[in-house]
Amino acid sequence: MSRYTNKGTVIMETVPSIISFGSAVGRMEGEGPLGSCFDYVSEDSTFGENTWEKAESRLQQHALEQALIKGSISEGDIDFMFAGDLLSQCTASGYSMRDTGVSFFGIYGACSTMAESLALASVFADNHIGKLIAALTSSHFCSAERQFRFPETYGGQRPPTSQWTATASGCAIVGSHSGPPFIKAVTVGKITDMGIKDANNMGAAMAPAAYESLKNHFAATNTSFSDYDLVLTGDLGFVGSELLRDLFMQDGTDPGDRCNDCGLMLFDRKKQDVHAGGSGCGCSASVLCGHILPRIRKGELANVLFTATGALMSTTLVQQGESIPGIAHCVHISSDPSPIGGN
Amino acid sequence: MSRYTNKGTVIMETVPSIISFGSAVGRMEGEGPLGSCFDYVSEDSTFGENTWEKAESRLQQHALEQALIKGSISEGDIDFMFAGDLLSQCTASGYSMRDTGVSFFGIYGACSTMAESLALASVFADNHIGKLIAALTSSHFCSAERQFRFPETYGGQRPPTSQWTATASGCAIVGSHSGPPFIKAVTVGKITDMGIKDANNMGAAMAPAAYESLKNHFAATNTSFSDYDLVLTGDLGFVGSELLRDLFMQDGTDPGDRCNDCGLMLFDRKKQDVHAGGSGCGCSASVLCGHILPRIRKGELANVLFTATGALMSTTLVQQGESIPGIAHCVHISSDPSPIGGN
Repeated sequence: MSRYTNKGTVIMETVPSIISFGSAVGRMEGEGPLGSCFDYVSEDSTFGENTWEKAESRLQQHALEQALIKGSISEGDIDFMFAGDLLSQCTASGYSMRDTGVSFFGIYGACSTMAESLALASVFADNHIGKLIAALTSSHFCSAERQFRFPETYGGQRPPTSQWTATASGCAIVGSHSGPPFIKAVTVGKITDMGIKDANNMGAAMAPAAYESLKNHFAATNTSFSDYDLVLTGDLGFVGSELLRDLFMQDGTDPGDRCNDCGLMLFDRKKQDVHAGGSGCGCSASVLCGHILPRIRKGELANVLFTATGALMSTTLVQQGESIPGIAHCVHISSDPSPIGGN
Repeated sequence: MSRYTNKGTVIMETVPSIISFGSAVGRMEGEGPLGSCFDYVSEDSTFGENTWEKAESRLQQHALEQALIKGSISEGDIDFMFAGDLLSQCTASGYSMRDTGVSFFGIYGACSTMAESLALASVFADNHIGKLIAALTSSHFCSAERQFRFPETYGGQRPPTSQWTATASGCAIVGSHSGPPFIKAVTVGKITDMGIKDANNMGAAMAPAAYESLKNHFAATNTSFSDYDLVLTGDLGFVGSELLRDLFMQDGTDPGDRCNDCGLMLFDRKKQDVHAGGSGCGCSASVLCGHILPRIRKGELANVLFTATGALMSTTLVQQGESIPGIAHCVHISSDPSPIGGN
């Protein structure tokens, strides 16, 4: 039975395994520094569909399919699916899953969705509620851009703080304790709103949430930056990552060289015109499932604190002058099979 | 530890209690047949706010506040919140919870959200992952109407199959086994799409999902309609409720007089101009928390199978000619404290 602490942290007792994982991305992501890591790279951002929304659903199906194939798992073996995305009414997930017959939990955590779904899947697996539980999410540049900002054809100029929504998806399938990667603990975030109103500066809106969740996770597990090879934020980008470091430095804590950000890893900011970095649910999902989980499995990384962040805004509320609430959830993923606190 | 069956059903071992519950509604809902049941009835659909979206967040806060007050619970005692709503990017929930400091899981199940959040809260409580876990959802006629259909001022005519989005919210706080109502089992739904493309006929899109989930729940728990005083669907309305009955009759199963629907209970269709009935996440949430849970607590109802249904569509996908996927989750709520299958 999982052990609960009063900071939103759940310590895994059985230390569930991520049994399999898959990733799928668009062409631009395939041309980035991590391009060779991904299981599926499309040459075409339509993914063979006639609308961007359907393209995103298809992209999600590719990530799930890769996770199933690599784990020799059939779709019918998945007991529960936790999935969500950025589209209004989470339709990328609803439509991608409609023909699967898998028991479905729709979730919404903006760009924190991969950490939220992975946290829930881990809690279910640790308590033997189903044998295989999947976490899945996606984003697509074109479906997001026309929903949150302008139609592409408008040609609006992007400010330097803006981020580039990744066309990407990742799927992780969690099951009972077997081989690495293992899930050791999760910390569920609280909504943090520091008054940022600029929808083109999501990094700044999300950094305080990452700071709060990391502090809570460190306190609940009695750890600090030095206990992790990598503290991997979701998609703070350049601006948000700097701000997160500042928040810790003001606190007297030096994160050292242990932090990196999926939004800074997915693209090459010198060669690819993504301004402050990548974003979108699929950004952290694809970097986690394409690049990080394989390295943990191989033993190249021992302890990763995956901390995806989300900006819980909508265009309607931003137009009404509201500030942007942020959230961040932490998932401690490890190559070490022992539970925290020992048994 | 909860017991999992292979139909998406989780049987509660400790049989958690719904410790407290609260409801809040708008004026029209307060004038309906259940008007006297609700904890908070607003005279004003703005709830003192200057936009419909903020009004919906405030409505949610009223439902939570009522649940807290009635249970003598302070907000800081809530370990986890599962909340969602119909607005794009689930902002009613994100904004209502941003000042609470509660660990937050955003979820999306369209009008099935109350059953989804209650199912997750029950699983957490049954496995002692937190002491008090809240399930919260809402809908608001004006915020939903301008998002999904037309601005109210457009004056578009509504077809007879259309439903009226309720201005309503409900909150249930689940904790360890104490007094009734108890949660005995939950069944997580699968996405079911029978090809309905009419966004003004949600009942028809959702009825097949209710049918599938009820069949799965009955099979997994070895029960039938006669084992429940009430099989309470979310908001199928008149059209969807008739269709659900037809689906069971075709199967050789007569639901008898055990079925009712929150969408038919919230409004008086003869006196209130709601066409096929009420709908929206808040419809089933308010009927459950305002009318049903008090009756279970008093012993007037012994076994209720709460089955909220959702249409996982967006205006974008409907405009693209896509059919509407439905989902339904079942939660067995009882006045009887013993676990299913005995101990």
